[in-house]
Amino acid sequence: MKTYLDCLPCFLSQALKASRIATADEKMQREVMDQVMEQLIRLPLDASPPQIARMVYGTIRTVSGNRDPFSAIKQKQNELALDFYPEMKAMVRDSDDPLLLAVKLAIAGNIIDMAIQREIIDIREEVLSIVSSPLVVNDYAVLRKSLTDAKQLLYLGDNAGEIVFDRILIEELTTMGTPRIVFAVRDEPIINDATCDDARAVDLDRHAEIMSSGSGAPATVLSECSSEFVHLFRKADMIIAKGQGNYESLSDEGENLFFLLTVKCPVVARHLGLQVGDRVLKSNRGSSKS
Amino acid sequence: MKTYLDCLPCFLSQALKASRIATADEKMQREVMDQVMEQLIRLPLDASPPQIARMVYGTIRTVSGNRDPFSAIKQKQNELALDFYPEMKAMVRDSDDPLLLAVKLAIAGNIIDMAIQREIIDIREEVLSIVSSPLVVNDYAVLRKSLTDAKQLLYLGDNAGEIVFDRILIEELTTMGTPRIVFAVRDEPIINDATCDDARAVDLDRHAEIMSSGSGAPATVLSECSSEFVHLFRKADMIIAKGQGNYESLSDEGENLFFLLTVKCPVVARHLGLQVGDRVLKSNRGSSKS
Repeated sequence: MKTYLDCLPCFLSQALKASRIATADEKMQREVMDQVMEQLIRLPLDASPPQIARMVYGTIRTVSGNRDPFSAIKQKQNELALDFYPEMKAMVRDSDDPLLLAVKLAIAGNIIDMAIQREIIDIREEVLSIVSSPLVVNDYAVLRKSLTDAKQLLYLGDNAGEIVFDRILIEELTTMGTPRIVFAVRDEPIINDATCDDARAVDLDRHAEIMSSGSGAPATVLSECSSEFVHLFRKADMIIAKGQGNYESLSDEGENLFFLLTVKCPVVARHLGLQVGDRVLKSNRGSSKS
Repeated sequence: MKTYLDCLPCFLSQALKASRIATADEKMQREVMDQVMEQLIRLPLDASPPQIARMVYGTIRTVSGNRDPFSAIKQKQNELALDFYPEMKAMVRDSDDPLLLAVKLAIAGNIIDMAIQREIIDIREEVLSIVSSPLVVNDYAVLRKSLTDAKQLLYLGDNAGEIVFDRILIEELTTMGTPRIVFAVRDEPIINDATCDDARAVDLDRHAEIMSSGSGAPATVLSECSSEFVHLFRKADMIIAKGQGNYESLSDEGENLFFLLTVKCPVVARHLGLQVGDRVLKSNRGSSKS
């Protein structure tokens, strides 16, 4: 997915929000804004939004000197989600279709996202509401069928906190007998995206192999990923990609991709033909709105 | 009121929205965005937001070659409001306190604003809801008292459409015997702000003298206004200023000012100690929240 004009004010807005998290110094915040605008002027928009976001957040890091502004927020998000873990496990256990419930939880977990503008007051309440309502795009039957043959499954993670929800789904996949599951994370801290440290902090390494994508973009920009990662990406039978960033960077890739996400911005909504807030399980083979 | 960092992404967002109204040419829209960012970089923020907005909307005009992109929208807004005029007059006539109701209608009319992000689906419904709820800042008693002595009243208009609501209040002031009322408008088209032509289109000239402020800013930036206007501004017994723009540009001026507005953005909300959506009748003498 390319970048749209609508993304430019959004990048600037994100830059302000993140620079306020990175530093209390208003002069530095202003310097971030100025440098970001300098970068955006006449910037070709054929890159995907996460490629530009990487530059924006890199500027915040450089100007503020704060390498990981979202560190405390990520820790908090992981803790909040872990608190909710036992209840989620019980929900899956008691469900008529544990895999479907685990998928819905993984999509619901995608709301834990600092890049968007709104605050999550009560994660638990919102998650329960999402799980009890239908997916707007629902390729569950295709996903379920693909799983029966999948020997190598690559799971592309997204945010801290959300990865606890992913753990639930991965545990379910393990129970179903998927032979090899690799959970991919960002190579270095960016926004509240999960890194190796985060994956280990929520014990994901007990259930999957953890692998860095080799890139620090808040997405999976293949041209920036390590050859080891790209090799796995090409040979995996099945890829589950979480969140908008992974959709933005991979929407033009193969048919073995499944996108699990909550639509968070009008640009992605338009690209998908959906509304902001819609929950999506989309096979890249082509899917139908429910 | 000075400009805040939060205003920068908002200017860029407004520039995109307005440039799409001004032209269908995406290259021109991008050129607007680039030029606006060039202007905003390292721009001192001690000017008020409307001074910067004037520059932004001037860029849209220059790049698109469209002198008045909002012309059709303004005409539509005037027509919509005129359709609602008889019902508003009946509401005022049947009210226990016609002046208070006319004041509330004038504040409600401030929702007809293209500079904000949301769309007004049904003006009538929203207006009725506003009129039936209390003002969050309510200096009506001070306003009422000031009116008894006022010989020259200057009324600073804001948007097209909204001026029909202002007409209701001005007719009420005339009925109460205010000797001279001057209704001030922008000197040239900017966003959907009312000009002399708009004021005449809704027959405001039957009830007040129409005067241009001499400035094309979407507000009352005194340093840019004509000497004739500033003279009147200084000698008026009482000034009613409509909308956020006039508040942003005049909040540091005299005690004879009354601001009638709906709070539309988080920055103005913070400056006033209020919430977005709050309705305000504020005396510049100092006021109390109700």
